[in-house]
Order: sequence, then C-alpha cells, then structure tokens
Amino acid sequence: MPLPRGRRPGPTVRARVTEVRGDRTITHEDRLVTEEPLELRLQAPGLPGTRLGITMRTPGNDFELAAGWTVHEGISPPDGIIGVRYCTDVDLLPEQEFNVVTVELAAPPLRLPSAHVASSACGVCGGDSVRDVLADRPPSLRGTTSLSVAVVHRLAASLRDAQEAFSRTGGLHAAGLFETDGTRVVVREDVGRHNAVDKVVGARVLAAEGIPPVLVLSGRVGFELVQKAVVCGIEAIVAVGAPSSLAVELAQQAGLLLVGFSRDERFVTYAGRERLGV
Amino acid sequence: MPLPRGRRPGPTVRARVTEVRGDRTITHEDRLVTEEPLELRLQAPGLPGTRLGITMRTPGNDFELAAGWTVHEGISPPDGIIGVRYCTDVDLLPEQEFNVVTVELAAPPLRLPSAHVASSACGVCGGDSVRDVLADRPPSLRGTTSLSVAVVHRLAASLRDAQEAFSRTGGLHAAGLFETDGTRVVVREDVGRHNAVDKVVGARVLAAEGIPPVLVLSGRVGFELVQKAVVCGIEAIVAVGAPSSLAVELAQQAGLLLVGFSRDERFVTYAGRERLGV
Repeated sequence: MPLPRGRRPGPTVRARVTEVRGDRTITHEDRLVTEEPLELRLQAPGLPGTRLGITMRTPGNDFELAAGWTVHEGISPPDGIIGVRYCTDVDLLPEQEFNVVTVELAAPPLRLPSAHVASSACGVCGGDSVRDVLADRPPSLRGTTSLSVAVVHRLAASLRDAQEAFSRTGGLHAAGLFETDGTRVVVREDVGRHNAVDKVVGARVLAAEGIPPVLVLSGRVGFELVQKAVVCGIEAIVAVGAPSSLAVELAQQAGLLLVGFSRDERFVTYAGRERLGV
Repeated sequence: MPLPRGRRPGPTVRARVTEVRGDRTITHEDRLVTEEPLELRLQAPGLPGTRLGITMRTPGNDFELAAGWTVHEGISPPDGIIGVRYCTDVDLLPEQEFNVVTVELAAPPLRLPSAHVASSACGVCGGDSVRDVLADRPPSLRGTTSLSVAVVHRLAASLRDAQEAFSRTGGLHAAGLFETDGTRVVVREDVGRHNAVDKVVGARVLAAEGIPPVLVLSGRVGFELVQKAVVCGIEAIVAVGAPSSLAVELAQQAGLLLVGFSRDERFVTYAGRERLGV
C-alpha cells in the first residue's frame, strides 16, 4: 500500500473487510499486520555499498533488525557496527525510502552470506532488491472461479481432517488444494508453510495434472504465499490465520479471493469478494 | 538425529521429554515434527549439477517439494520437469543421502534464483549445502544460567502482556529477552518470527548492552532460531509453540535449555533439563 513520501509505514494498517458469520455478512474496518520488504545493505572498509538482499518484515525497529541480523549471520561482532541508517537512493521510489537500510561496519565483514535458496518461508528470495520484489508481480488471474459461502465454511475442517501429523506434534503447517465444490484433491504438511504449498503444487505437477483453483492453508498468509498461488493460476486462498497487508494488496491486484480467520462458521474476506457466491 | 544408512527420515521422531504441570514433573515419550535440511540441485542442458541451495523442511514428498518450488520460482514450466531424484554423491554422509534432491529439466532454466538474504524465516540461509548447514554449528554454551519452574510459568504471560499489536491483527510473532529472575528486558513483534528475534538482539546491540540469557517466543521453535540464540550466548529458550527435531538436537548439543508448549501452568522441557531449578 503506497505511502505518501517520507511517511513511515506503521506496524498495522486499516482495511475494509467483509465478515461472514454463518450466513450473515457485515462489512467493517479491520487492522492488518503490515508486511513490507526490507533491503539490507552493508558498508565497510574496502566494501562500499554491498547489497545483501531482502527480508519481508513488519516495519518498526528496522535498525535493530538490521543490527541483530548482521550479528546472527556472523557478519560482524556486536561492537563492530558503527552505524545503521535508511538509504536515500535516487533510484528508490519515494514510498520505498524506509524499506532500505545500510549497516556500517568499522572493519571488513567477518563473512558474507553466500548464494542460497529459500528457507522454509522464502518465496520471495529470488529478488535482489526491493524494486525487484515489488516489480516481479505475476499477471492478473483471468478465471471466473467462484466459491459459495457454504463451501468456504467447510474447507478448513476438511483440511484438518486430512492432516496426519499435526495432532501428534503440534508443529506442522498444512496446505491443501480443493475444487470449487469443496472436493479435497491433495493435502501436504511441513514444518515450513511455504514448503507445504510447494508440495501440493508439486504433487500435481509430477502427476501431470492441472492445479485445482482453491488453496486452503492452516496458518497465516504472507505476500510470498499469494505470489506462489498466483503464479500457478490458483484463484482463491482460504486460510485459518490472518493475512498480511502485502498479501491483501497482491491478492486485490491479481483478482484472487483471499479469505482469512476461517473457523467455527465464520470467515473474513480481504480481497476478491466478487468471487464469493451465495 | 543421525539415521542409519539408507533409512529415510519420517515426518515425526520420538523423544523423551520432561513435562511440568504446576509443580509436578513427569517424564514421558513425545513426538517431534522432523526438520531436516533439503539441498536442491538442478540438472539441465548446458547446466550440469547446479546447486540451488537449501530449504529446511519436514521429510516426505521431497520430489513434490522440489518440483513445486521449481515451478513457483519460475525456473521451469510444469511440463519442463523430466525427472526428480535423490543424489548419491560420494561426498555425502550416509545420513544425508535423502536430504539432497536433483531436479532435471528438458530445457535450460527460464531463470535462476539470484543471491539474496534471508526472508522472514531464514536464519540458515548462509549455507550453500547440507554439509555447510549442519557443520556450521556454534560452540557449546558455557554459562551456568538456571531458571526456576516458577519463573518459567510466568514468562509466556509476561511476553503476551508486552505485545502491542497482536490483539489488533492476530498476525504477529513476538520475541522477548528476559533475565533469569523473570524480569522482562525487551520485546519486539514482527510478521516473521526470525525478524522478531533479530530485533530484540539488535536492540541490545545498538544500545551497547549485553544480551540477557533467556529468549521467550510466541510461536514454534525451528533449528534456525536455536542457532541464532546460541550464536548470541542465549542459554534458555521458552516458547509457546512446539520445537522441531533439529531444534531439539542443536539445543542438546549446545547445552541450551529448550522449553516448549509453555502455557496455562504447564510446559515441556526438550533439552538442557539440568538448567531447570526448583
């Protein structure tokens, strides 16, 4: 959600949402947790302006995030950090000026992070800069999938029924692909929620079958999960947890139905309300 | 947890744990969700054996995970994947042979993931291979911190009291640093739980103050969070959620007290029980 120049994003943003309880529908204002990319850069003797990459984060305490990350990654000892600041790069869009932070070191870094793949929650990690991440958006969905309220009410329970390991460990995320009539096609679990989404889509890819249009998630919905869904042509996400601000923004742009807090005959629609039938 | 040669890890593993309910203590067998690194490699015309990197995942459906990830990252269209297999690399330790997967493409990749930093859950992303990740373990903790049962019972509630945004959005993870007497030092929230840990440590780094010995987490505990804690000399983690198998293994090796499911006058000790006082 673009902000006026020079205005820092807060930890939450307001949104108009449509809440369904049973068969009653009410529209009201809600708060979403803010998710924005943060680009980390390093400045050190002999190493001017090295771009380290991106993390998706909630704005606030960004200098602390940058300093803690630098120490945790073994890039610098705690007392080697002599400054942290926002960048005022002429190439940056005004609304991104609080999304790029430079950490300045007194001495050359002890190590630099090497190239790598996503960890359990890294859908976005292909991008090198804030501009790449936000520019690299998939095209809008063209499908005309619609979901009935009655089907949405059933999906989370159906996912839960299919979960094999959760009740034994309490530690697994689940993802499931469903047809619009509520038919459950495939469910997978993983300690990383992005992995669970990769697995359900991969199951269909390896079977040389099409990707069903509805993705059901046991947890929260970040930007990267919506991005994965749109890339595959998935047209609706129904989640048990909350979506982030950037997840809602991308879903709105792409025309994806995004439902959160789906539990106990209640759910909240954050985007694509026109795909919700009676 | 090393497995016999040729044995595939399952989605859960058994562990002996100590459960405390009020002031009663019982030891019993429990199940942990398995977390293991998966190294993804690519084989394509003109591109033999490119190492893409690592994801931390729950073993099972690894070929699906690799295929789905390849499609989501835009590396190949679904029908461009002609094979997925485990690697039998002479350099690999026997227990890692099911932790390395190669995706074979019919045509050169459409794109390759570029170098980047951690996303919201990527503590481990510095490593290039399974061997790097598992070898890059911090030294054992030397401190003699001990926590009383009464203090552990109070920590999660104290973290929750300090959370500012959660009740408004339902979408934020919290991390807090505490002294061993239960004094709350600093709490931060973020859409990514690794970011919240980076922020609390970064807050102390930027204030040029020491890192308190107890880390309290609102959610689950993966390998990467234990790694971050040990790097900073943190000696105890108390979490509201479940730990993974690799988190428990690393905590045991490092001598860190690892407590999970801390809620309602109950908690479970997974490692470092000797640091738990009366």
